[in-house]
Order: sequence, then C-alpha cells, then structure tokens
Amino acid sequence: MNLSMPEPVHTTSCRVLYGDTDAAGIVYYANYLRYFERGRTEYMRDLALTSYREIEGQGLVLPVIECYSRYKAPAAYDDLLTIETSLAELKNVSCRFNYRIYRKDGDGSRTMLAKGYTVHASVDRNGRLTRLPPQLLVTLKQNITVHI
Amino acid sequence: MNLSMPEPVHTTSCRVLYGDTDAAGIVYYANYLRYFERGRTEYMRDLALTSYREIEGQGLVLPVIECYSRYKAPAAYDDLLTIETSLAELKNVSCRFNYRIYRKDGDGSRTMLAKGYTVHASVDRNGRLTRLPPQLLVTLKQNITVHI
Amino acid sequence: MNLSMPEPVHTTSCRVLYGDTDAAGIVYYANYLRYFERGRTEYMRDLALTSYREIEGQGLVLPVIECYSRYKAPAAYDDLLTIETSLAELKNVSCRFNYRIYRKDGDGSRTMLAKGYTVHASVDRNGRLTRLPPQLLVTLKQNITVHI
Amino acid sequence: MNLSMPEPVHTTSCRVLYGDTDAAGIVYYANYLRYFERGRTEYMRDLALTSYREIEGQGLVLPVIECYSRYKAPAAYDDLLTIETSLAELKNVSCRFNYRIYRKDGDGSRTMLAKGYTVHASVDRNGRLTRLPPQLLVTLKQNITVHI
Repeated sequence: MNLSMPEPVHTTSCRVLYGDTDAAGIVYYANYLRYFERGRTEYMRDLALTSYREIEGQGLVLPVIECYSRYKAPAAYDDLLTIETSLAELKNVSCRFNYRIYRKDGDGSRTMLAKGYTVHASVDRNGRLTRLPPQLLVTLKQNITVHI
Repeated sequence: MNLSMPEPVHTTSCRVLYGDTDAAGIVYYANYLRYFERGRTEYMRDLALTSYREIEGQGLVLPVIECYSRYKAPAAYDDLLTIETSLAELKNVSCRFNYRIYRKDGDGSRTMLAKGYTVHASVDRNGRLTRLPPQLLVTLKQNITVHI
Repeated sequence: MNLSMPEPVHTTSCRVLYGDTDAAGIVYYANYLRYFERGRTEYMRDLALTSYREIEGQGLVLPVIECYSRYKAPAAYDDLLTIETSLAELKNVSCRFNYRIYRKDGDGSRTMLAKGYTVHASVDRNGRLTRLPPQLLVTLKQNITVHI
Repeated sequence: MNLSMPEPVHTTSCRVLYGDTDAAGIVYYANYLRYFERGRTEYMRDLALTSYREIEGQGLVLPVIECYSRYKAPAAYDDLLTIETSLAELKNVSCRFNYRIYRKDGDGSRTMLAKGYTVHASVDRNGRLTRLPPQLLVTLKQNITVHI
C-alpha cells in the first residue's frame, strides 16, 4: 500500500497522556489510531472547511473500513507528537487518509514513530453506500487537484 | 459515602489487558471505571434478569451522574480480577451501585485493589428524569428486600 | 468533599474525539479522568515549573489513590472543552487536585459539564510513602500560599 | 497480505462494553486492536503454554511493529464476540498473528465483523532484536508444524 503523503499535508500536535501508555512504558499500539482520528478530524476542519460533525448532520457517516499502522519507534509519556495527515485517495463513495506521526525532539529535530492509513466508506444512516456530499467533493478535489 | 456491599453481591471476572495498563506498570486509574461498568452490566443481566441494552430499548438511559473510586493496591498486567457489584440504593429515578475489585492470587487468597460506587439517573431520551420501569423496580426490590 | 477551586486555577483545552464517546452519543464517563490527567499534567508544567516526567526521573511516583467525578451535563463529539485544575490540598506525602470541565459554546458562553478531584500519594519506586521533593513543595507552596 | 487462519485456531470470547463503543453506536475502530490483544494473549497461554508476562520475565518484549484491520460489519454494545487467533508466521526474531472477530447471533449463527493481523518483533529490554526463547520456539513449531 502506498503510504506517500500527497500535498497538502495537514499538521497537528498532541501530547502523550499517561493514559495512552502501557506497561512497556510506551504508547499502546491501539492508541495511534486515536492520533490518526485526531489528524483527520483537524484535516477536515482546516482543509475541507467542514467538521465531521457537520457531515454527520447531513445524514452521512464515514466509518473506517480498513486501517493499517507500521510502528518504527515508540512514543513515551509526555512526548510531544506531530500528526501529519494527507488525503491519499478520493472516490465517490470512499476516501483514504495517510498519516505520519513524529516525536518533536528537544533539539528541534524530529523522529518518525509511525505511519499508516485509514480507508473510509461513505454510507447513510442505514449503512448504504452514498456519494460524498458534492460540495465536500469539490472542496477536497480543489485541495488535491494535482495528486488524485 | 457508604461503600458497604448489601447482598446479593454479584461476582464476575476479568483479565487485565496490556491496553489497560500505563507506563507505571499498573492499571490506569480510569480503567477501573470500565471494570465497574462490566460489573454492573453482568449484575443487571444475572440478578435483574434484563440487559442494559433491553432497558435502552424501552427508551430509557441510565447515565452515570456521580462516580468514586478509592485505590488500595495496584493491578498489574495479566492479573485475574474479581469484580464484585452490589445495588446499594434504589430510588424511583436513580440508583447506586457499589463495587469492590480484588486480585485473585495464586495461592487461592485475594487482595482488595479498589472500591467505589457509581450513581445513575434514570432519564428518557430527551434527558428528562423518568421512573425506572415498574417490572425492573419489582425485580430489583425483591432482590434486595432486606437492605433498602 | 470540598470541590472549590483555590487560586491559581490552571486552564487548558481539549477537543472531544470520537474515541472518547460512547453509544449514548456522549463522552464515556471514564474518559473524564483522562481529561483530569491532562489538566493536572499541564498545571504541573505551567505552575509548578516541572513535568510529571521529571518528578518520576527523581524516583518518585504520584499514583491516584482516590478519585471522584460528578457529571452535570454531557459532552458530545467534537465539543471544545476547557479543563480547569486547582491544587486543593498539599501535604508532605500527598496532594489533591480539583477539576472543573466546561464546554465552550458557540456564543462565547460556557456550560459546566463535570467537577471532581483526584488525591495522589507520593511514593518511591517500591511503593513507600516519600516526601514530595523540597523544591517542588516550595514552588507549589509559593503558588498557593494563601489557600493552604 | 495473507489473512488465512492456519491451524490451530484459538478461540476466546468477550462482551462489548459501553466503553468500547462510540457515538456512531458501534465499537470504535481502535478497540478491535484490544480484542486482537486479548486473542493473542489467550493463544499464548493455551497453545504456547506460557503467558506473555512470563516471556517478559525473561527480559524479552514483543512489541507490535505492524498491524492491520479490515472492518466488515460493526459490533454493537453488549454483543458477544468470538475472537479467533492463529499464528500465521514464525521467524527467529518476529512472528505474525492473524485474527478474525465474529458476533455470535441469537440463532446460533455468527457474522464476521473484522479480520486483521499484528506483526511482533522480539527485542530485549534495550530494543535490540533477540531470538525468541528456544523453548517457546519449539512449542510453537510443534503446534504449527504443517503450516509454516
């Protein structure tokens, strides 16, 4: 699977809570999927000019139908993370986001911790595949014209 | 607050997942509230002869309006826990469950790890206080005649 | 229990993730304890001039020995929350933080969603009660001279 | 990626907690990774005759370096799930588990909800790749002679 990050890449930050870590002293693997969620939510708000809450208000849900994560280095308690999100694929009834998670190191450098993707179907409240809202498609396509 | 355990005391078990622990090597404090939930769900199923899902099917929800936990000793990864649940208070529009969580030790003894309570309001889907279903009240009151 | 908020009150924000909510459409009750953790971590960093990670680096841990939360109104997905944290009690081997969680409403007003507290013991890595580091006590006491 | 389930397939059960679900009324996607963890932990205990805690006691950790999940149908609150786990690959310093998660339906049938895998490295406490313990390799290989 292609894990490249087509422009525009959206960036957001979060701090590792104690509650995100596990007894190995590092972030529990499932919690990276929470970071992915944070990344795509803020991507939508900032680049698609809509919130996922508004999309749901139109009777649409975008459940995850596939997800993948590769872990390169562990995150520890209190680490400051950068979450990069990119819209890697956009179809009428589905889309795919790619992610990279970095730790901001004290000296200004950063270390890549994980990369992955999520694929979302666009369905109505009864679970039937439904086209993404035209206005959203237009905004997203303008956003990513070159890449998709 | 009275943390006593009026009879009948319902008992269920669960195993500590890695995902329940934190970087201190012990169960993260918020996750005991998940164990409390497991305890009261199985109490309802076994002693009140109904599932919380069925109660919700009648248009009622029982949100937690108060919770408390005192931590006596930590649980570690892979510990086998016993969750004891007791219905400590039953009113027309609210109820309170008390809990005790023990670790089963290898030699057959057990160690108390936490005790606490949750208070639940009975509300309809619009959030208005609503009497608990009569049949449920009857079953619960038969269950705990002496104590409440 | 006194849930007042002695000055200084530290304020931080967070956004409700989908992963924080439950099938009732609101934030799961245990997840408020994660918000409490976020509040006290940022309190320590900003007002005590130390991170909890640094405290641990000195061989000390501050496990939660008691927690309480009262839920007044539910938080929903994507709500922007304000977490207020106050150091309500400071002893040689324990401390207590009080919290209030508000939802920022669109019109600039806010709604209180929850208030609660956590009590922490100061223990060494073997679980023995240990005085808080003198420097930390001094900083905290200067911070809250009037109130404790 | 091959998601087949080589024999022996280990089976365990768990009940969906309210805390596992999200505001869409279904299990939050990250929580399937908790179910995967439950599956492989019980696989190790029952088929490899060791607990992951014992492996750690030998100075070894098996961090997840890759995970994948495909979601076919949603799980809801209180569903009774069957978690199937299979050891799909066994190398000297890594292994891969495949998983399938089913919902047990009332009429005795079942519905597949998700399938996925996790890849684990075998590392010592300093993060260096380290051979899996010989005894564990022997037990696992006897277990899965035909398939790997």
